Amino acid sequence: MNAPHQPQAPHSLADQYAAVRSQTLELAAPLSEADCQVQSMPDASPVKWHLAHTTWFFETFVLAPHLPGHRDFDPAFRVLFNSYYNGVGAQHPRTQRGLVTRPDLATVRAYRAAVDGQMLRLLEAPVAPAVAELITLGLQHEQQHQELVLTDLLHLLSCNPLAPVYLPALAAAATAPPAAAATWLAQAGGLVDIGDAGAGFAFDNEHPRHAQHLRPYLLASRPVGQGDWAAFIADGGYTDPRWWMSAGWDWVRSQQIAAPLHWRRSAGHGADWQVFSLRGLLPLQVDAPACHISWFEADAYARWHAARHPGQSPSRLPTEAEWEHAAQPVWAQALASRNLLESGAQQARPAAAAASGLQQLAGDVWEWTASPYTAYPGYRAWRGAVGEYNGKFMVNQMVLRGGSCATPRSHIRASYRNFFPTDARWQFSGLRLARDAD
Amino acid sequence: MNAPHQPQAPHSLADQYAAVRSQTLELAAPLSEADCQVQSMPDASPVKWHLAHTTWFFETFVLAPHLPGHRDFDPAFRVLFNSYYNGVGAQHPRTQRGLVTRPDLATVRAYRAAVDGQMLRLLEAPVAPAVAELITLGLQHEQQHQELVLTDLLHLLSCNPLAPVYLPALAAAATAPPAAAATWLAQAGGLVDIGDAGAGFAFDNEHPRHAQHLRPYLLASRPVGQGDWAAFIADGGYTDPRWWMSAGWDWVRSQQIAAPLHWRRSAGHGADWQVFSLRGLLPLQVDAPACHISWFEADAYARWHAARHPGQSPSRLPTEAEWEHAAQPVWAQALASRNLLESGAQQARPAAAAASGLQQLAGDVWEWTASPYTAYPGYRAWRGAVGEYNGKFMVNQMVLRGGSCATPRSHIRASYRNFFPTDARWQFSGLRLARDAD
Amino acid sequence: MNAPHQPQAPHSLADQYAAVRSQTLELAAPLSEADCQVQSMPDASPVKWHLAHTTWFFETFVLAPHLPGHRDFDPAFRVLFNSYYNGVGAQHPRTQRGLVTRPDLATVRAYRAAVDGQMLRLLEAPVAPAVAELITLGLQHEQQHQELVLTDLLHLLSCNPLAPVYLPALAAAATAPPAAAATWLAQAGGLVDIGDAGAGFAFDNEHPRHAQHLRPYLLASRPVGQGDWAAFIADGGYTDPRWWMSAGWDWVRSQQIAAPLHWRRSAGHGADWQVFSLRGLLPLQVDAPACHISWFEADAYARWHAARHPGQSPSRLPTEAEWEHAAQPVWAQALASRNLLESGAQQARPAAAAASGLQQLAGDVWEWTASPYTAYPGYRAWRGAVGEYNGKFMVNQMVLRGGSCATPRSHIRASYRNFFPTDARWQFSGLRLARDAD
Amino acid sequence: MNAPHQPQAPHSLADQYAAVRSQTLELAAPLSEADCQVQSMPDASPVKWHLAHTTWFFETFVLAPHLPGHRDFDPAFRVLFNSYYNGVGAQHPRTQRGLVTRPDLATVRAYRAAVDGQMLRLLEAPVAPAVAELITLGLQHEQQHQELVLTDLLHLLSCNPLAPVYLPALAAAATAPPAAAATWLAQAGGLVDIGDAGAGFAFDNEHPRHAQHLRPYLLASRPVGQGDWAAFIADGGYTDPRWWMSAGWDWVRSQQIAAPLHWRRSAGHGADWQVFSLRGLLPLQVDAPACHISWFEADAYARWHAARHPGQSPSRLPTEAEWEHAAQPVWAQALASRNLLESGAQQARPAAAAASGLQQLAGDVWEWTASPYTAYPGYRAWRGAVGEYNGKFMVNQMVLRGGSCATPRSHIRASYRNFFPTDARWQFSGLRLARDAD
Repeated sequence: MNAPHQPQAPHSLADQYAAVRSQTLELAAPLSEADCQVQSMPDASPVKWHLAHTTWFFETFVLAPHLPGHRDFDPAFRVLFNSYYNGVGAQHPRTQRGLVTRPDLATVRAYRAAVDGQMLRLLEAPVAPAVAELITLGLQHEQQHQELVLTDLLHLLSCNPLAPVYLPALAAAATAPPAAAATWLAQAGGLVDIGDAGAGFAFDNEHPRHAQHLRPYLLASRPVGQGDWAAFIADGGYTDPRWWMSAGWDWVRSQQIAAPLHWRRSAGHGADWQVFSLRGLLPLQVDAPACHISWFEADAYARWHAARHPGQSPSRLPTEAEWEHAAQPVWAQALASRNLLESGAQQARPAAAAASGLQQLAGDVWEWTASPYTAYPGYRAWRGAVGEYNGKFMVNQMVLRGGSCATPRSHIRASYRNFFPTDARWQFSGLRLARDAD
Repeated sequence: MNAPHQPQAPHSLADQYAAVRSQTLELAAPLSEADCQVQSMPDASPVKWHLAHTTWFFETFVLAPHLPGHRDFDPAFRVLFNSYYNGVGAQHPRTQRGLVTRPDLATVRAYRAAVDGQMLRLLEAPVAPAVAELITLGLQHEQQHQELVLTDLLHLLSCNPLAPVYLPALAAAATAPPAAAATWLAQAGGLVDIGDAGAGFAFDNEHPRHAQHLRPYLLASRPVGQGDWAAFIADGGYTDPRWWMSAGWDWVRSQQIAAPLHWRRSAGHGADWQVFSLRGLLPLQVDAPACHISWFEADAYARWHAARHPGQSPSRLPTEAEWEHAAQPVWAQALASRNLLESGAQQARPAAAAASGLQQLAGDVWEWTASPYTAYPGYRAWRGAVGEYNGKFMVNQMVLRGGSCATPRSHIRASYRNFFPTDARWQFSGLRLARDAD
Repeated sequence: MNAPHQPQAPHSLADQYAAVRSQTLELAAPLSEADCQVQSMPDASPVKWHLAHTTWFFETFVLAPHLPGHRDFDPAFRVLFNSYYNGVGAQHPRTQRGLVTRPDLATVRAYRAAVDGQMLRLLEAPVAPAVAELITLGLQHEQQHQELVLTDLLHLLSCNPLAPVYLPALAAAATAPPAAAATWLAQAGGLVDIGDAGAGFAFDNEHPRHAQHLRPYLLASRPVGQGDWAAFIADGGYTDPRWWMSAGWDWVRSQQIAAPLHWRRSAGHGADWQVFSLRGLLPLQVDAPACHISWFEADAYARWHAARHPGQSPSRLPTEAEWEHAAQPVWAQALASRNLLESGAQQARPAAAAASGLQQLAGDVWEWTASPYTAYPGYRAWRGAVGEYNGKFMVNQMVLRGGSCATPRSHIRASYRNFFPTDARWQFSGLRLARDAD
Repeated sequence: MNAPHQPQAPHSLADQYAAVRSQTLELAAPLSEADCQVQSMPDASPVKWHLAHTTWFFETFVLAPHLPGHRDFDPAFRVLFNSYYNGVGAQHPRTQRGLVTRPDLATVRAYRAAVDGQMLRLLEAPVAPAVAELITLGLQHEQQHQELVLTDLLHLLSCNPLAPVYLPALAAAATAPPAAAATWLAQAGGLVDIGDAGAGFAFDNEHPRHAQHLRPYLLASRPVGQGDWAAFIADGGYTDPRWWMSAGWDWVRSQQIAAPLHWRRSAGHGADWQVFSLRGLLPLQVDAPACHISWFEADAYARWHAARHPGQSPSRLPTEAEWEHAAQPVWAQALASRNLLESGAQQARPAAAAASGLQQLAGDVWEWTASPYTAYPGYRAWRGAVGEYNGKFMVNQMVLRGGSCATPRSHIRASYRNFFPTDARWQFSGLRLARDAD
């Protein structure tokens, strides 16, 4: 782990701590105790668990070893809110997180307050660099869980036939001119360096920076849109095995997949698509990025798109190296302009109509890549129990890049590697097309 | 369904209504919104759902057809809180009841209050007999759900590694003299009449009263106790296929069953048994009835018991006809003296030390019988959607008799037929032995 | 078990032995080694396994304890071909019977020959009554497996998209006059005796003969026919929850059941029903009994039939006591005239056009009853390992009566109790309607 | 696909065809019809199916389009023996291959003979290059199935508690001097070319040859041995989560994995390991490569090995590029000396005691790599239905390199990419360690 100071957030560590922690509580503010309690599927966790587990992280990795005289808020929490750190000990089974109605939400809030008090006391004096690094890691960790709070909540609300809302719908935008069609932007490739090179925080999985050889390629200016995806469906995309990986085709048929997660046919005439969101059931937004698709779907879309454009090199997903290499020079402006957690939209939105160049790299939707999630050459996991953070998940998952509308701005980087299994759909996940230079 | 007036409860229907409805709220009073929200397994339902569904029953079967000008509290509830009445329409899937965090608990309480208001308005004037019958059925239905509130809640709390309590532990009883050993009480049998013969309410499945021929038999004076069950375990009862039905042996091995549900080994030396209850983790009570056992376990215990007493006719479960025939003449006193919901104990307790005759017939634990749940000869289901109440479940379940510590006193009868599948254990279920006359 | 001599087969035990054993080999004669090897589902067994297991039965229960100097053909067979007798020791897992390609079929035939040689040597001199009883049991056991050879084989062949035949189709019958409509035959009921009273062999589950009280009832003259069943389908029988037990409705939907097992729509115009049989794919035979239905289907049909005949007491399945009481006085003629294994048809066939009274009681199709399979009052399982034969299966199964076209004539009795779970369909199972006297 | 002539096999295509086809029959020669019939798990196929499917490949892709006047042997085989080519049409379900007892083995042999006759007739005259390419592909395809015949058969025989043998045990080797310890061989890395560059046949997934950048690394001289693996087990390798990927640890616990597939504890004192093989149950061979391990196990072993050697860069699996780059210069000699299918051993064997350099690259065991199976940059699938051969499997699988004792010599190349899911163990799969240059 690198030095803890972050260029994006030039405040004290105590300020950063307070800001991140309160952001989490704000996300939970509109929710009832019941909303915070339920686990809607094994992959998701209750909001209450997120509130507690992020607190457990600071208590376990910072306070217990580094605050003299620290006593655990409740010794039972050591097991109860451990996610997957075997180095720390046993864990309450993941699939049973939603069954723990005691401690109640008020107690978990008290747990947060108690740990926050001790953390701020610790931060009153300068802390050793190693401790500062752990605190920074804890904040980055909490930001990841902020995104999960929203995606897990969206999944929970989507299981309710009454289609409840987390936040009221946004005011309708003034009728915007439709976005220009996506264009192909050429990248030269060659022997390029990939991986974190910054002075700020980065995860171990972004290191070491290393050389990769890339052939010349083209990258689409924008993610695939909801209108594009509706055309894929209308053209029989989900019923034609030609577009699908063998495992993807098995998945489509066994799970009866016929549209992105949270897409629903409206009841009325015409049967238009509607999209369930944190702001309720909304009409399809043709220009907004398609979202809540699995890697299997992203990959199938690319192959379908290739067949529809026979005169050029076939469309495909970019590799993560292609994505990162293209993003590096434009990252600062990408970050400045886009729809991340702080925008408050909490849904993917159309690109600005007049934009040019690579758009929506940061925010809106995570972009599936063609790259399996593996260790970079020379990768070393962090030492100690936090070494379980990333390394042990480097198999049977695919990399996503760029962050989403639920990702905090100070959390995302051009080198950031998110990863999910090929059938996961409950994240804000979309895709951007690439192809070989002709 | 019979005439609605009930000898046990010589009050007005409005009084009965108010009493039963408030009893349900009292059961939920110690619970948080989270406690009321969670569904801990597919067989169980959230307490909030019980609160709403029992209200739905009155709205759907009484108010909607019989109160002029009635308007539904929320039309969406018609599907959301329908349990299994195809005659009423679609149902929210049973396994997803716990995912419905909206309406919240306050709204469900408001739903109860609104329906109660309309019901009491309806009851201000005399109602037609058919309507009175439906209201009585609704109250009996709610009493069944009162028991389920407690058993479902116990299951939920048992999933929490912190062993939370619903109510504080009872004060330790003064050291009671141990109960005398159970004795065998002879019953003559012959051609006897079985089924409801009372003037009060009874379910359709208790009718028609009809003749059955019984051989002479013996019935144990008391249910099998927790000490008896510990001896069965200590003797290898769960590891010897001789005692088990073939399907039961498959169940024991695949589910790794080694003790009744909610029994746990204490951590310390000696590894004594503890029993998780609505009042927390308690030491084994040797003289209290064994509880939370499946039919497979009850049946296996009887066969083991038979092998340990080779000089007499083999122990077995009684048939429901044997149970009812023996219970009929002593039912009133059985009911008067025992541990039912109103006792407030909410756990099975030992028989009185000085008791004689058939003890604990009513209350404490439901008693598994040897009888599959089938229609009595000449059975007719009630007309209309309430005809789905009992008849469609008459397959692959076994009958239990006598009520438990969670059964309301005004709900249970000697002819009452409860029924569960052979592997169900989360109810307050035990057994009483029988055998043929020698 | 009773005395071994059987009135139906007044030959020596050695003659009976030779006849039954050769009958099994005749059933397997048209089959290849591959046909005899495969296990098409967990409920079925390979023909090779049936050939070996029936031989194991004689070796284990007769030769090993009763033939001085006996040595096992192969000691490994003791485990390999044990079905479910825990009293004998371990068992090869049921679901893996089809994986045992060695010993090969020739070795299993040699095993049969070796055991037959020893058995006939044992039978050269008179044997003790207890040994004769065990041999008779072994022959009855083998006859049960003869029926299973055919039903398991039919299931295997039905999994082959080429629709292979076991035997060539029967010559088309001369156009018979259609059978007269089924009629209702009145039975008086009263306090009647049920259970085996004969001098010949009967299973322990047919004892003891005991009194049951029956109300007056009516029994249909014939089983429900294929034409009747096609009408049930055409009327939406499989898509209307009103006709189904709750568990049956779950089964219909989860398993996507829409017709009896082995019924297929023909490809051509009109989409007529075809029925896959041991003689290949045949057109529907309107007058032949419907077959390969589960208890859930039989029960649903009765309820649908009741709704279509509102002016009379509702149609239902008969209890096994009703069935047996009606069959007792007419059993000898029933047995004489009907389609059992020896007819060679190996499919259910229409009743004779001119018949009257109760028809097709014996043979054609097993008839599902309303009775769960339980112990008769005073039931005692046989002593020793053969006590596992019947008793441990007396739960969660329903009784069928009367034998089928695959049942040997010397095997079936009016008191005979067959039993299968409520979703089993691969046996030759149909139904006969009953109803209360009006 | 490249030009069809193969340097390793400088014979006519007709000669090659005859040689490969007869080799398949030789593998099946020791087997009974039952051995050839059974499918022991969904991943495996019956030998009879392999015999038919490889024939179907020539009939479908060569004879039908390219032999004038060709008529299918049996039109039903088009579906029945199609494995996964959606471009050809429907497929018999994979999991039901073992249920097809008709056509019998003799018919499948006749099918082979008929297709062989037509193929040799086609090859009497020179064929077009495109046809020659398809025939070469068909032969390579059949060679892959030759390996699967052996691995699927081994799995089937391993399910038989009698531990039957395919071939008799090899004569015990004269006591060989133990192999010298494995050594680390340095590789310089740099920007290297990977992928097929030969003039002979290669699969589409080996193309295009392309540049990859490799850091300096070390490769073990030999695969990990059975003695090494026994030490891993003895040190608790299967019970310590530190060595395992998170998904691997879930797999170990849910599947109760504690040793490689086919390893068994001997019954006697000491409980030595035995290994079930095509030549029966054999004692552990310390110096022979460990085999039948999953990727999860290979990866865990490397991490355990790293912890046991803390003074050097951590042991890990090589990437496929590292493996191929090291193998290229020594491939010819690797191929010449080793244990491939033609050796007849049909089990992994120790390296020669006096060997030096990289040993056992070719043959003995496939070596798991750190590389997920993905498309090379610029990859294009073959045109037409054969384009489904490789591309649609490029997800959630890992690459193995080098061939095994069951791989035909003329089939394997340094650039050859085999691939299996991370939990597959029934192939002859082992591992070779790598690490970064210190």
